[in-house]
Amino acid sequence: MRAVRVHAYHEPPVLDDVPDPGLGGPLDVIVEVGGAGLCRTDLHILEGQWAAVQNPDLPYVIGHENAGWVHEVGEGVTNVAVGDTVILHPQPSCGLCRACRAGKDMQCENAFFPGLSNNDGGMAEYLRTTARACVKLDPATNPADVAALADAGITAYHAVRKALPLLHPGTTAVVQGAGGLGHIGIQCLAALTGTRIVVVDKNPDALALAAQIGADETVQADGDHVAAVQDLTGGGAHVVFDFVAEQGAEMDGWNMTAPDGSYYVIGYGGELHIPTLDIIATERNIVGNIVGTYTDLSELMVLAQAGKVTLHTQQYPLDDAVRALHELDAGHVRGRAILVP
Amino acid sequence: MRAVRVHAYHEPPVLDDVPDPGLGGPLDVIVEVGGAGLCRTDLHILEGQWAAVQNPDLPYVIGHENAGWVHEVGEGVTNVAVGDTVILHPQPSCGLCRACRAGKDMQCENAFFPGLSNNDGGMAEYLRTTARACVKLDPATNPADVAALADAGITAYHAVRKALPLLHPGTTAVVQGAGGLGHIGIQCLAALTGTRIVVVDKNPDALALAAQIGADETVQADGDHVAAVQDLTGGGAHVVFDFVAEQGAEMDGWNMTAPDGSYYVIGYGGELHIPTLDIIATERNIVGNIVGTYTDLSELMVLAQAGKVTLHTQQYPLDDAVRALHELDAGHVRGRAILVP
Amino acid sequence: MRAVRVHAYHEPPVLDDVPDPGLGGPLDVIVEVGGAGLCRTDLHILEGQWAAVQNPDLPYVIGHENAGWVHEVGEGVTNVAVGDTVILHPQPSCGLCRACRAGKDMQCENAFFPGLSNNDGGMAEYLRTTARACVKLDPATNPADVAALADAGITAYHAVRKALPLLHPGTTAVVQGAGGLGHIGIQCLAALTGTRIVVVDKNPDALALAAQIGADETVQADGDHVAAVQDLTGGGAHVVFDFVAEQGAEMDGWNMTAPDGSYYVIGYGGELHIPTLDIIATERNIVGNIVGTYTDLSELMVLAQAGKVTLHTQQYPLDDAVRALHELDAGHVRGRAILVP
Amino acid sequence: MRAVRVHAYHEPPVLDDVPDPGLGGPLDVIVEVGGAGLCRTDLHILEGQWAAVQNPDLPYVIGHENAGWVHEVGEGVTNVAVGDTVILHPQPSCGLCRACRAGKDMQCENAFFPGLSNNDGGMAEYLRTTARACVKLDPATNPADVAALADAGITAYHAVRKALPLLHPGTTAVVQGAGGLGHIGIQCLAALTGTRIVVVDKNPDALALAAQIGADETVQADGDHVAAVQDLTGGGAHVVFDFVAEQGAEMDGWNMTAPDGSYYVIGYGGELHIPTLDIIATERNIVGNIVGTYTDLSELMVLAQAGKVTLHTQQYPLDDAVRALHELDAGHVRGRAILVP
Repeated sequence: MRAVRVHAYHEPPVLDDVPDPGLGGPLDVIVEVGGAGLCRTDLHILEGQWAAVQNPDLPYVIGHENAGWVHEVGEGVTNVAVGDTVILHPQPSCGLCRACRAGKDMQCENAFFPGLSNNDGGMAEYLRTTARACVKLDPATNPADVAALADAGITAYHAVRKALPLLHPGTTAVVQGAGGLGHIGIQCLAALTGTRIVVVDKNPDALALAAQIGADETVQADGDHVAAVQDLTGGGAHVVFDFVAEQGAEMDGWNMTAPDGSYYVIGYGGELHIPTLDIIATERNIVGNIVGTYTDLSELMVLAQAGKVTLHTQQYPLDDAVRALHELDAGHVRGRAILVP
Repeated sequence: MRAVRVHAYHEPPVLDDVPDPGLGGPLDVIVEVGGAGLCRTDLHILEGQWAAVQNPDLPYVIGHENAGWVHEVGEGVTNVAVGDTVILHPQPSCGLCRACRAGKDMQCENAFFPGLSNNDGGMAEYLRTTARACVKLDPATNPADVAALADAGITAYHAVRKALPLLHPGTTAVVQGAGGLGHIGIQCLAALTGTRIVVVDKNPDALALAAQIGADETVQADGDHVAAVQDLTGGGAHVVFDFVAEQGAEMDGWNMTAPDGSYYVIGYGGELHIPTLDIIATERNIVGNIVGTYTDLSELMVLAQAGKVTLHTQQYPLDDAVRALHELDAGHVRGRAILVP
Repeated sequence: MRAVRVHAYHEPPVLDDVPDPGLGGPLDVIVEVGGAGLCRTDLHILEGQWAAVQNPDLPYVIGHENAGWVHEVGEGVTNVAVGDTVILHPQPSCGLCRACRAGKDMQCENAFFPGLSNNDGGMAEYLRTTARACVKLDPATNPADVAALADAGITAYHAVRKALPLLHPGTTAVVQGAGGLGHIGIQCLAALTGTRIVVVDKNPDALALAAQIGADETVQADGDHVAAVQDLTGGGAHVVFDFVAEQGAEMDGWNMTAPDGSYYVIGYGGELHIPTLDIIATERNIVGNIVGTYTDLSELMVLAQAGKVTLHTQQYPLDDAVRALHELDAGHVRGRAILVP
Repeated sequence: MRAVRVHAYHEPPVLDDVPDPGLGGPLDVIVEVGGAGLCRTDLHILEGQWAAVQNPDLPYVIGHENAGWVHEVGEGVTNVAVGDTVILHPQPSCGLCRACRAGKDMQCENAFFPGLSNNDGGMAEYLRTTARACVKLDPATNPADVAALADAGITAYHAVRKALPLLHPGTTAVVQGAGGLGHIGIQCLAALTGTRIVVVDKNPDALALAAQIGADETVQADGDHVAAVQDLTGGGAHVVFDFVAEQGAEMDGWNMTAPDGSYYVIGYGGELHIPTLDIIATERNIVGNIVGTYTDLSELMVLAQAGKVTLHTQQYPLDDAVRALHELDAGHVRGRAILVP
């Protein structure tokens, strides 16, 4: 089959012809890829930033945001069958450790992350995953339309989902960064809460889109935005979702958070510097967020199939993967880039 | 191997010589039984009360409260290895359905219940279960000492665990029925909360034991006990745990529950008759409780291994199983009867 | 001032001329009534059904669903000032007992209920309440437009609010009874959750309205409705909100509830008959619901002022109160009847 | 009456003869002080550290940790009567703002803090507070025995109470700092959870005491303590309670926190420096904690009156207040110093 493989860091990946993946264990599932999202993390992988953390043997196939059709299943698989349309949780989990038993898939002691860890990913015709990563979809779903929910989508949904008990009517939520993840987060907030949604971004186009999909107020990040949010909220928001969290945005996010409020970190790259006195005197919280659970992905797909969360995507044939990655790096992709067979 | 099998309802079971069970799927585990608890449900099975519900092919092996040592594992098993000491959740779950993914093992769509459903149970030398039923124990644990926690124990723990957010210091909890399950519930309440514990039972010996293991107050169920609890609590308890829920105890339990309180049903056999006006005017709740989750069993074993929950047991050799069941039926067993190899 | 007073049960009330109410304590507030809702409970009061429960001295002023403008305040009042537009929680609470300190206003040990308990209500020009009942509104609000949220509204909102953690995307909620409370409940569910909303009612017009304001599915209560809901939901709803709970609807509601689901009782009049085995085997819950808290009312007003919850009302001059009650009794009122000055 | 007043910063306070305080509003309560705790915050006040924050008019009476007997009540007070034994929440709240209505006393918009804000405190014969600060006690209680629970106690209890849902059996909690607050926190954890308690402190005597009152493990803070906790816990604790949070302890506390765990900040003085990548990759939380609520204080008093939380105190006559403060500053007080009449 064709597959996009990294041969060396700081070099473009190569579209290779490689053997199809096969079943390796009783819960394994081979999926025919119908849509594979491109993510900035793929660029970071090519730049070698993940080499030390995950240390995969090169060459290997990238792509961790996948949907498609079940092609083959191991003997222990009971939740999906050949031919089913599926979206894939990016990190197959074991189902046997304490974390899995409590529904905390991302804390699984035995998980792997195809396309990131030492396992081939989904920028290819076929992908090996496991039964515990497969969320079955309406057969009419086009995998290319939803693939981006597999990683960007559940990360945004997970953070919003955790914050729901804090977001009753009368509260305000700030979304900092209305890009790929942020614009999903805004839609989730609008679908699931009665909170007032304030969106902060540098880009006027992103703010215009935000206003269309659920923002009650928008604030341009022009240097006065922390004060502007303070004014709009009378002293800060109950919850701040920071999809940026780098280049100073992280301290802005913290400073937009009201007393008794919570600052949800989803983006990364920056560093917080906070006196413990500031934390206790205002009784504020900082909440870490990573990729969501299998249940999060299932729930998000319900919203997506009901039309409450939609994605802007731009499709590229698998054969043009290298060009697509280049355009992503150059900032020329509008919406999410998706590889299709 | 030797196994206690039901050949016909309304007849004593028979100690048969049958083939050892073998692996049937990749997650299967064969356990050498070290302790198998006797439960009143076993008597009900023999009386045919479960025939219509579960409809097992006869003859079959009973026994659903088991602990022992891992004897053989399927190719997909990663959480236990041959030789491990284990206690077994009574209902192996699939790990793939929506309920399992949310940690709700008892709502698994594909579960079975060895010794109750159409699957052989643990009153035998060996038992077939699956990896998802196995909780690994300290190797020094004697399975016979803990087997009764596998069913009676997690049922009591599950109800207490669900009620913890309601039981802050200053509240009162009533435990109705200080028998097998109830005396575990009392110990769990004493270990995990600062609530005042009031125990109601007909039997003065049971009340004396209750006072030793954590009850703050005891009330004999002599006909005036609802009024006595009302007096002790100033109008009812915040939570009532009803381990009886038959022969009128169910209405007593409801009537001991304070406004804004919750009545937890764990026992069964009776019938509630409640005007909806009574429910809304006092804003009371009725909470159903079944066997606990895998996580519940794991947590309970932590309490047990720390000495915070202890069991009174009486051991019988497997060869004497029929006599043991007879003694249980006759009310001659003190504590929990456990079959040992 | 003019006031609608009950002089004797089983007789129409009388529009009397009585002295204006005055301040009686430091937290008292006198409100000029701008809108007073008529409720079926007012009819029940006139029928003498509440005589034994509340035992007010006759004659007294009825009306427990009120909004208006602050006319006079006691010396300890700091949250509202003369001239403020306010909606009134129906049960002023003390703010000092344990229940109040935990935010549980309806469990206040020292509360009273003007128009129901031995205190004059709001079908009058002025009403005495306390600071703890006053929710301050946008000054532009017309009290007559929102008065019905003061009792019918918060009762529906309270039940929905309590159930929110159970209603994630992928679940189904049944609303039984799409009348005054039910149609507010539907709007709250649509505004605050991603659950699928199934509405059950006998009246096709009520179902047609339900479909406009958020119902995903409607089911006519024609005798086959329990089976219809079972089919639609694959075995029952995760949450059933029963705004009827009489004349057999209460058992229908319970029987529409899925295993692991919860049956929320809001209406009343019927009686549940449930074997404890049914409760434990399916691990279902029954949840009592009464009028909401002050915080519930505040939150609901945010939804109302954002246009997410709207009411159909029919206004009557205070002078026509007796006629309005008569029309309510005769079933001729469309939406909620509201008395205006 | 006699009262300990600050006349100027950087100078010892003076025992003055001043007029008795009088009622100023309908909810005011005058308390005859039976015990007034000395706190390090009193030393910081004398050093001028709070001057800018609270800016009280000098001279004023210090002392914010008080218990005693009700001496006089305003006309609106219904929860206590003259002669009642009471412990006082340090921050009287209004009972009318949104925060108060949700039970969040410390976020009250109209609160004051006698002895810290511009209001006289309790190092005196009498103190003016309000009804909403008074928790009624068993009349037999000696105020001097419990006064320290009014501030140090509820702060520790509040943090533990918030963390209870995270501390099921099988988890580990670290308590960093086993001094005044920490040793109350340890007792609360032992009374209310089944978590394993690991205590970290520099002082071997504090660790010895910790082991007596509930610590399962103790670790001396000798520079290797983070690694020691990592070893004991297999990678960090589920919850870390940091009662120090200065001089580097704050980063130690964060680094002792397991993935998916929470770092509770209670002490203050230091500064956290944390890359956002560390927060999201491990999905950890930082939780701010301030003084507890009225309900927290009520619950803590239940534990105290049941003997589950005890205090070591050293009494000084009010006339020796200046000496007591000097001894506290010099580190010569064992347990908590309490002024008595």
